[in-house]
Amino acid sequence: MNIEMITAAAERAKGHVRRTPLLTSPFLDEIAGRRVFLKAECLQHTGAFKYRGAWSAISALDPETRSRGVIAFSSGNHAQAIARAAALHGTSSVIVMPADSPAIKIANTRALGGEVVLYDRANESREEIGASLAEQRGLTLIKPFDEPQVIAGQGTCGLEIAEQAAEAGVTQAQVLVCCGGGGFTSGIALGLADRAPDMQVRPVEPEGFDDVTRSLATGTISRNNRLSGSICDAIITPQPGDITFPIMQAHCGPGVVVSEEECLRAMAHAFMRLKVVLEPGGAAALAGALFHQDEIEGDDVIVTASGGNVDAPMFARALETLE
Amino acid sequence: MNIEMITAAAERAKGHVRRTPLLTSPFLDEIAGRRVFLKAECLQHTGAFKYRGAWSAISALDPETRSRGVIAFSSGNHAQAIARAAALHGTSSVIVMPADSPAIKIANTRALGGEVVLYDRANESREEIGASLAEQRGLTLIKPFDEPQVIAGQGTCGLEIAEQAAEAGVTQAQVLVCCGGGGFTSGIALGLADRAPDMQVRPVEPEGFDDVTRSLATGTISRNNRLSGSICDAIITPQPGDITFPIMQAHCGPGVVVSEEECLRAMAHAFMRLKVVLEPGGAAALAGALFHQDEIEGDDVIVTASGGNVDAPMFARALETLE
Repeated sequence: MNIEMITAAAERAKGHVRRTPLLTSPFLDEIAGRRVFLKAECLQHTGAFKYRGAWSAISALDPETRSRGVIAFSSGNHAQAIARAAALHGTSSVIVMPADSPAIKIANTRALGGEVVLYDRANESREEIGASLAEQRGLTLIKPFDEPQVIAGQGTCGLEIAEQAAEAGVTQAQVLVCCGGGGFTSGIALGLADRAPDMQVRPVEPEGFDDVTRSLATGTISRNNRLSGSICDAIITPQPGDITFPIMQAHCGPGVVVSEEECLRAMAHAFMRLKVVLEPGGAAALAGALFHQDEIEGDDVIVTASGGNVDAPMFARALETLE
Repeated sequence: MNIEMITAAAERAKGHVRRTPLLTSPFLDEIAGRRVFLKAECLQHTGAFKYRGAWSAISALDPETRSRGVIAFSSGNHAQAIARAAALHGTSSVIVMPADSPAIKIANTRALGGEVVLYDRANESREEIGASLAEQRGLTLIKPFDEPQVIAGQGTCGLEIAEQAAEAGVTQAQVLVCCGGGGFTSGIALGLADRAPDMQVRPVEPEGFDDVTRSLATGTISRNNRLSGSICDAIITPQPGDITFPIMQAHCGPGVVVSEEECLRAMAHAFMRLKVVLEPGGAAALAGALFHQDEIEGDDVIVTASGGNVDAPMFARALETLE
């Protein structure tokens, strides 16, 4: 992994991946006790930063390989990103999803052009199904985070943050990133290390799923005890990646751990003050800035809003946190 | 009014007014039966396009006049825009609001730096209070729409639409604009007439408050029978302006009239597909594109989302329209 891979990914993304805005509100600054800049990746195609990595990985394939199609295991943001990026590259995608996935997610993935293959979580292995399909059809597996071209794609967000912050006069800040397996976090960290060396990335995770925070603190990869059961499902992974972890070790400050309730409240503030829709996991970094200010340093903080794919009942629950 | 006033306003706005994104979703295209591009002015500072006009008008004042302060009558988006734009110009603002305005609007306007003067709707005249304050303190009145420098500011949105649409390969389209007194509509129409002459602006209004649509159809200014009682309050005005109406007559196609229910449904679609928060009036143009497709021409339609200042209960009501 290096900055050249990220700048190459940015070149391939031109005209295809959205340059999302960096939003501000004096009301958020007041709560946070410093200026807050929110990188609104919820406004990215398919509603999450994942589209950056998907576009990067698929556009990096040689044309012959790409023409045979790609495959991904995901029921969430990565699935939709891969389905759309593949379709817009004129190739096919197979998305292996649990049969009990919400109907809307299955429908969305299909509508974006993905072929959905359902499996029974209890009795079947998605890896086996995927491996067999990949072999039969010559499909290329696109992993969700521990994959260099995916990390390079997520890193393009770091290049934009460096540019947009500089336009706002900010070159020194902590950058809070909603963190699952570390693809987004490590990509941004690599981009900023080159373009804005006075910025420091801080991973943000939900309580009970703070594998990256613990791994960074101890210096060895550690797993989460639970692998599901968080409303922040979009950023829940078993453990940091083999590729992402060393990058985070080299470039990131300590993790910040937020509660689910804080994520819901951050969603409500983003609704009220920035007019953007965040999913619970996508609001983790903003929750860190608003409610953990003593753990952060500096006059300015940048937060990534990683995604906005939330259903109406969960969003209504977030709105109820407003007094 | 001319294009030079708009380009001058754009020059003064640089670095102060947000260039809002032009958003798309294949799911919205499918409903609308054509490609839909949404200009997300809900992401503008203070949550509405009004900030463009406020910044333009205040920045156009000569420094001595500006230093004495400005005054506005408004309980809504114009008030917040004037309060913030004045504060960032280092001058004071007086906002005359009805005493029964929602507490949150009063608090927001104060927090943005405005001095709020309350009046009793039933027994006092805001014009008299305003005139008396303006005279005592030498304040300049900034009208919400029928004011050339305000129209010029709103027109900067038209310049951005022309540029951003061209980047997406679109030079010919109908442009649906959420329309109250016509400041936004006429400003955009003037900007596009110069920069994208193959585009045609279409004002969009809520049922029962279609003064502009009727005025355009008959060729004479006509009033609304009611002046309140719509959830689309942000775009309700008594009648088109003396300055805005002739501009709309010269440049706009026929109006489109949408129901409140359609606005709520459009808000829900914008939530689900674009991850932005729209207020009911701010969703009128999107409602036109999604639910009045037979009244629109062409393969592409551009809609302005004029604002996102909606409270949680109303937004929850919009979400309930999702099946």
